[in-house]
Amino acid sequence: MLTANPEFRTETDLLGSLSLPADALYGIHTRRAMDNFPVSGRPVNPRLISAIVLVKQAAAMANRKLGLLPAEIADAILYSCSQVLSGDYKSAFPVDALQGGAGTSTNMNVNEVLANLAILRLGGKPGEYHRVHPLDHVNLGQSTNDVYPTALRIAAIRLLRPLANAFASLQEALQEKEEAFAHVLRLGRTQLMDALPMTTGQGFGAYAKAISRDRWRLYKVEERLREVNIGGTAIGTGLNAPLKYTFTVTELLQELSGLGLARSEFPMDPTQNMDVFVEVSGLLKAAAVNLLKISGDLRLLASGPAGGLGELKLPAVQAGSSIMPGKVNPVMAEMTGQTAMRVIANDSAITLAAMNGQLELNAFSPLIAESLLESLEVLTSAVTLFEEKCIRGLEANAAVSAARVEMSSALATALVDYIGYEAAARIAKQAQSEGIPVREALIREGLMTAQEAERVLSPRQITKPGIPGK
Amino acid sequence: MLTANPEFRTETDLLGSLSLPADALYGIHTRRAMDNFPVSGRPVNPRLISAIVLVKQAAAMANRKLGLLPAEIADAILYSCSQVLSGDYKSAFPVDALQGGAGTSTNMNVNEVLANLAILRLGGKPGEYHRVHPLDHVNLGQSTNDVYPTALRIAAIRLLRPLANAFASLQEALQEKEEAFAHVLRLGRTQLMDALPMTTGQGFGAYAKAISRDRWRLYKVEERLREVNIGGTAIGTGLNAPLKYTFTVTELLQELSGLGLARSEFPMDPTQNMDVFVEVSGLLKAAAVNLLKISGDLRLLASGPAGGLGELKLPAVQAGSSIMPGKVNPVMAEMTGQTAMRVIANDSAITLAAMNGQLELNAFSPLIAESLLESLEVLTSAVTLFEEKCIRGLEANAAVSAARVEMSSALATALVDYIGYEAAARIAKQAQSEGIPVREALIREGLMTAQEAERVLSPRQITKPGIPGK
Amino acid sequence: MLTANPEFRTETDLLGSLSLPADALYGIHTRRAMDNFPVSGRPVNPRLISAIVLVKQAAAMANRKLGLLPAEIADAILYSCSQVLSGDYKSAFPVDALQGGAGTSTNMNVNEVLANLAILRLGGKPGEYHRVHPLDHVNLGQSTNDVYPTALRIAAIRLLRPLANAFASLQEALQEKEEAFAHVLRLGRTQLMDALPMTTGQGFGAYAKAISRDRWRLYKVEERLREVNIGGTAIGTGLNAPLKYTFTVTELLQELSGLGLARSEFPMDPTQNMDVFVEVSGLLKAAAVNLLKISGDLRLLASGPAGGLGELKLPAVQAGSSIMPGKVNPVMAEMTGQTAMRVIANDSAITLAAMNGQLELNAFSPLIAESLLESLEVLTSAVTLFEEKCIRGLEANAAVSAARVEMSSALATALVDYIGYEAAARIAKQAQSEGIPVREALIREGLMTAQEAERVLSPRQITKPGIPGK
Amino acid sequence: MLTANPEFRTETDLLGSLSLPADALYGIHTRRAMDNFPVSGRPVNPRLISAIVLVKQAAAMANRKLGLLPAEIADAILYSCSQVLSGDYKSAFPVDALQGGAGTSTNMNVNEVLANLAILRLGGKPGEYHRVHPLDHVNLGQSTNDVYPTALRIAAIRLLRPLANAFASLQEALQEKEEAFAHVLRLGRTQLMDALPMTTGQGFGAYAKAISRDRWRLYKVEERLREVNIGGTAIGTGLNAPLKYTFTVTELLQELSGLGLARSEFPMDPTQNMDVFVEVSGLLKAAAVNLLKISGDLRLLASGPAGGLGELKLPAVQAGSSIMPGKVNPVMAEMTGQTAMRVIANDSAITLAAMNGQLELNAFSPLIAESLLESLEVLTSAVTLFEEKCIRGLEANAAVSAARVEMSSALATALVDYIGYEAAARIAKQAQSEGIPVREALIREGLMTAQEAERVLSPRQITKPGIPGK
Repeated sequence: MLTANPEFRTETDLLGSLSLPADALYGIHTRRAMDNFPVSGRPVNPRLISAIVLVKQAAAMANRKLGLLPAEIADAILYSCSQVLSGDYKSAFPVDALQGGAGTSTNMNVNEVLANLAILRLGGKPGEYHRVHPLDHVNLGQSTNDVYPTALRIAAIRLLRPLANAFASLQEALQEKEEAFAHVLRLGRTQLMDALPMTTGQGFGAYAKAISRDRWRLYKVEERLREVNIGGTAIGTGLNAPLKYTFTVTELLQELSGLGLARSEFPMDPTQNMDVFVEVSGLLKAAAVNLLKISGDLRLLASGPAGGLGELKLPAVQAGSSIMPGKVNPVMAEMTGQTAMRVIANDSAITLAAMNGQLELNAFSPLIAESLLESLEVLTSAVTLFEEKCIRGLEANAAVSAARVEMSSALATALVDYIGYEAAARIAKQAQSEGIPVREALIREGLMTAQEAERVLSPRQITKPGIPGK
Repeated sequence: MLTANPEFRTETDLLGSLSLPADALYGIHTRRAMDNFPVSGRPVNPRLISAIVLVKQAAAMANRKLGLLPAEIADAILYSCSQVLSGDYKSAFPVDALQGGAGTSTNMNVNEVLANLAILRLGGKPGEYHRVHPLDHVNLGQSTNDVYPTALRIAAIRLLRPLANAFASLQEALQEKEEAFAHVLRLGRTQLMDALPMTTGQGFGAYAKAISRDRWRLYKVEERLREVNIGGTAIGTGLNAPLKYTFTVTELLQELSGLGLARSEFPMDPTQNMDVFVEVSGLLKAAAVNLLKISGDLRLLASGPAGGLGELKLPAVQAGSSIMPGKVNPVMAEMTGQTAMRVIANDSAITLAAMNGQLELNAFSPLIAESLLESLEVLTSAVTLFEEKCIRGLEANAAVSAARVEMSSALATALVDYIGYEAAARIAKQAQSEGIPVREALIREGLMTAQEAERVLSPRQITKPGIPGK
Repeated sequence: MLTANPEFRTETDLLGSLSLPADALYGIHTRRAMDNFPVSGRPVNPRLISAIVLVKQAAAMANRKLGLLPAEIADAILYSCSQVLSGDYKSAFPVDALQGGAGTSTNMNVNEVLANLAILRLGGKPGEYHRVHPLDHVNLGQSTNDVYPTALRIAAIRLLRPLANAFASLQEALQEKEEAFAHVLRLGRTQLMDALPMTTGQGFGAYAKAISRDRWRLYKVEERLREVNIGGTAIGTGLNAPLKYTFTVTELLQELSGLGLARSEFPMDPTQNMDVFVEVSGLLKAAAVNLLKISGDLRLLASGPAGGLGELKLPAVQAGSSIMPGKVNPVMAEMTGQTAMRVIANDSAITLAAMNGQLELNAFSPLIAESLLESLEVLTSAVTLFEEKCIRGLEANAAVSAARVEMSSALATALVDYIGYEAAARIAKQAQSEGIPVREALIREGLMTAQEAERVLSPRQITKPGIPGK
Repeated sequence: MLTANPEFRTETDLLGSLSLPADALYGIHTRRAMDNFPVSGRPVNPRLISAIVLVKQAAAMANRKLGLLPAEIADAILYSCSQVLSGDYKSAFPVDALQGGAGTSTNMNVNEVLANLAILRLGGKPGEYHRVHPLDHVNLGQSTNDVYPTALRIAAIRLLRPLANAFASLQEALQEKEEAFAHVLRLGRTQLMDALPMTTGQGFGAYAKAISRDRWRLYKVEERLREVNIGGTAIGTGLNAPLKYTFTVTELLQELSGLGLARSEFPMDPTQNMDVFVEVSGLLKAAAVNLLKISGDLRLLASGPAGGLGELKLPAVQAGSSIMPGKVNPVMAEMTGQTAMRVIANDSAITLAAMNGQLELNAFSPLIAESLLESLEVLTSAVTLFEEKCIRGLEANAAVSAARVEMSSALATALVDYIGYEAAARIAKQAQSEGIPVREALIREGLMTAQEAERVLSPRQITKPGIPGK
């Protein structure tokens, strides 16, 4: 039925036969998946593909070592793996990111590409699976259900580390500003209303503290991802995976990846339970919340210049408007906040997918994988760009911020210990309604002498613990 | 086994016997539900209880009319209904809001209370169900699965109307401010940076527009809730509910409620599909987004006074701080935003519950009910309080806002048509870095005469469409 | 400073100069945005680009018509527009989807590409902006802040229509099954427990009803998107856009798009308020909830075959497992559910972005745009694939499902009207614990004769409204 | 103006005077807050009130010790604290849970009640604040902004511990079932389709593993909550709180609470950053995901009995239906899943509130507090009830589940190593389509002898790692 066109080859599975480009590195399963899932137009995350190939590499090595796979075939597969890991095989992995089926199509795609590259290596043509078979050889001792979660954990750990480093670097940049602005006085605001004097540096100190927690959490959570279920095969019971193989493949994977991976003691658990990814994503969400808070504050403090606070000046990185000449916008802070929102939304996707696991497997792991890896990637980019193009170059407008402290009635709080809350409140109200400094109202009312007022109302003093003047 | 203590009575069901306070209006099912679900400590929303009683009322009337229920029993049940609807029977409905079981326990609780009140009416004692039976009489022709969704729709419609009215009133208040501040000039900000002049009134006009959409949407969506599945019984097929009964009960329910309810043509649909509640909640979420935007803007515009924008003054409704004397905070705007967040979170609960329906029923309808009714209630309160205690009394600080327009380089945009974008940008930058008005920089550079500048740079003019000076 | 390499050209803006490939169609602003936002690695949605080009086309026409733009320049720009709309200019639009800045970079990118194509048309070289200027000519009378929301609405409407059609087609497919399985008896389940008999067709009828609401909602909501703020420029006040221009451009846009667009009466509103997108996304979420419910039900009903319900057979579209031979999985239903989860997560992104608008603009509109367009696209694909590759070809296993009805104690409900709830419950319990049909227990207990039982317990009868046997 | 009615007293603040019931323990601030925030009808969580009182107690002790407060007044306040902590003062704390204002109203409410109780103790009448003043005495050295977050952390830790214990107990119950069902054979399902044999016990083992992670996470995260900002006062700088006081109050708070609290080294951080609550809530969400997975699985495995899997039998805790006699539903599992959904929704509220902090304070901390405490409370209840009323009493239906294994083609996977994937798939398909056991098809095809088949296809063997028969 299918014509013998030399540009095409025919492959067959239980559902029937299909024609493929003769040189296609993928096979019939991939072809069907391409037809079934033209959903998002986006391919599977390449970092996940690479991690799966790494698992295949470890499996081929283990199978060779234990005599489960002929050396010639194993070597050909190992050659394929190194090819894919070092080269550009993007077009060989066309399956959609939003595929159904718990990752089976991605695993099969990798199996087929590795088999065909191995076949080519051995002098055959793509599709001659009697030489190297995608399932009987490449997938030997494996199942999508142990390969995919294992690979996802590896891919996630590999992204977690640079992200933790990006946060470390951001923390450092914030601390640099904490020091640099240690003597710049500004008004602290609570509920956006004038509160108490502080230094601009102290504000950055509070940001640095929050970011240091993010850094620490992401550093710590890596260990949770290290437990892998490779060897558990389809449901975690390990059918068709001899224990010797499982130990060997885990050890090899540890070596190849350079990560402290450990064999799960109960592989049924990571096969079906996705809470660990929810945990990691939850920490990314906490980081996103901090980034939204900090970037929002910077946008506020740098707002204006005439119609805003104008106490900070963010570096100009591009012209701000297509209509308003000279306008410069806080686009790096906005990008950071917006990326944080995407991360929060991805957390929702991960939660939904994870909670919908049923019995021995979670069918929605592809959504978990794509969302988690995207969150890790965009956060790393955003944090780094935010640090480099926004934080490092920002400047304080000391004159503007100091003037505001002087004009505010915030200083009245320092009086509470001397004249009580109610009298202090009356003074504050008076100063504000008449537009005069608190000091002036205080002296006029005869509640303090000028000298006393001077001692008690020093803004610099007020940024420190204790009762001013005591 | 159970002693004949006169203060207790014994009831029995298929699982065995239980002792109850002799005068308890609820019965054994309620008792078991109390033991099973001490989860949140909060009872079922009383508005839902009332709506269920209304359904029971209509059912008893219909059953009486069609001769399915003896008149004496029906009348006693109708008496019970009117008692519960007019009196305080809170303690008779103790089942927890977060109960499992698709609302069965709430329906049974109502059945039992109505039966016992009817029994008392007929001279019996609580528990003498041979007189009036919770299931055989009160629940006749019904199932939780048609009563509960029907009642929820009624309860929701009853809350939707006042909410739509609250939005109408808020819209009006905003329009009042639109007019009142029609001549107050202020700087428009995009991305929080100085943009173009506008009037403070125009800002309120934009808010009013958004709120008018909320009002309209909530008004329109009511019709979607009007379709009820009463008569569908357990799975919507109508087993044990004669069609005559179904028509009659729907008609009576329409009369009793005064709402334009309609019989579902396919009662299996509203029995199992909860998308309508997701739709309604989605509209509440859209309204919440508007409230967050508006209340956030007001907090910004009223921030300060020294350290913020200070262009609006919100009414002071309480002292703002336990430590900072004289501080007044935008608590009504905060309350509004916070309530909006709660509504968005409830939308998440409703979505989760709705998507987890399975086959002929959604087991999680209690979460849908509690979350939706709460959202409707708190939004109505918040919108009304926001209007009355924040919007109506707020004032504009015209002097402050006009001064900012004058100081800003925003006016440079008006020059684009005359001198091009790039020259205008240069002028804007110059004005800003030297702290001089755009007008001055423009004249100094010889790009316009003072007279031309006057004509082109009128802020008032710039708040209107078109090229200023043309 | 920058060398005169013929392969590069230099462009300059207020921040300084940059070197660009000599033949790059984009300009300095795009170049800066590429440096600033390497966040997601994904470009802006091409449908949004096309819609912006459409707006530019209408603007150039309007400006030409009103004599605001020289005919030669206008024509060159129109030529550029048609080129971009019909050709493949993907590489000319490299700015990241997660860019900061309310869409300015995307608008500027389009301005630059259109200018350079026009310059080429007029015989110049890219970068010779004195011929055709990105801002002074292409962007004439416009701002990102009116172009971008207008284009987003157009892009969304264009996707809404095919989506509504996809739902219409899915509804039809479900109704086809409703009819096809009208006589297949199956057990209805509430809370996953045996409830009452129904037909497999009725189940599909309930799905069709839900989907018909989705179709209707999406059809109706289009009108909300039709209101565009083009002509409002930077903050909606219309500065630099003569009213005549605004009327003309809206009219032309209507013609060019073939959509019933209308000029906003208060353009400040759609410039700053994003609730309409939250509304649309909320409806997509309601649709997602229905898809999750339906696809989940199909997965349940088709589960097994030995270890599940096995009452439906979904079409096999690919081999199901890399380890378990012969396994076929419900991948199309899973893909559908998973896509629905993505849509729900995108709704979260849209809500977050929309609620964070401030004053006269929402800085996070790019996240709204990308998320909304993605939701529309993936839903359309998923719904179509679900219909074609899952619903149309699914089959009922009548023998299996009918046998379950016979074996169940579900029929006991039909007895309530005859022997009361409690006796019926006792019979049901007995039947179940002894593993005998309800009928048998009923007769053995002497509560009905065989003939009566036959009349009352007909499953077929029980799938219809009313009291069986009456 | 206000009449001298002996049943009322008058209090005055900066906004004017108000009349209060003469014996009201709360004062004018509380009264205003009652008027301002009638939003949800729910009072502030009592556990938060208690924790605030604890902070007040420590503060009074510290102030007494350091001579900042006269002993008589301090002692009276301490008396008030012990009264409130041990008695029922619910009606004294009427402020709404959804109050605006960062918790100021709650703190003021506590200040007023403690002051008035102290005044009564000293022989005065409520409102005689010259004796004991809510701010000058009870609130001495404090601000809402250090008291409230400190108290919230204490309240959260106090709830975290019982929750971790509840998870420990649930884990134990699951492990009990793991052992009890260690020899019950059942079919493992992936994507709800027949996969491989396993034991019912293994399934519970996988659940226990997931729950053990929850237990561990909640146990570990406590340390993050231990850092308190008491002494930081309004913005964390410590104005009006001498360092000696801060050290003393923290130490006393540690003693009084019995929790390992520690003074924040940088109190500005916990005053404004709420990421720690997002982190804790994220872990509760991970736990919720596990509960949804487990409870969903139990509902599936216990479904039927005729129309479902029927492999588990959950304890009957109440009658299941108001219309279907004898029906028993998995209400405890549903309650658990539903509670988990509420927790996920609360996480959304917490995230929204936390991300909206601005500058030196988060105005939305009341939403964080109410949502987090609710999540902790309802989870603890649900987990305990789930364990006691569902897990402990559930039984396996070994006959049903073993029969399914025998009937399924799942065993074909064991053949892969012997006859290859493709032949095994063919056998599986054949067995399934003819309704015969895999074994039979295998022998008939001549691929194995009966003896070989026996050795390879032992289900018991297949539940363990390795290649069966080798």
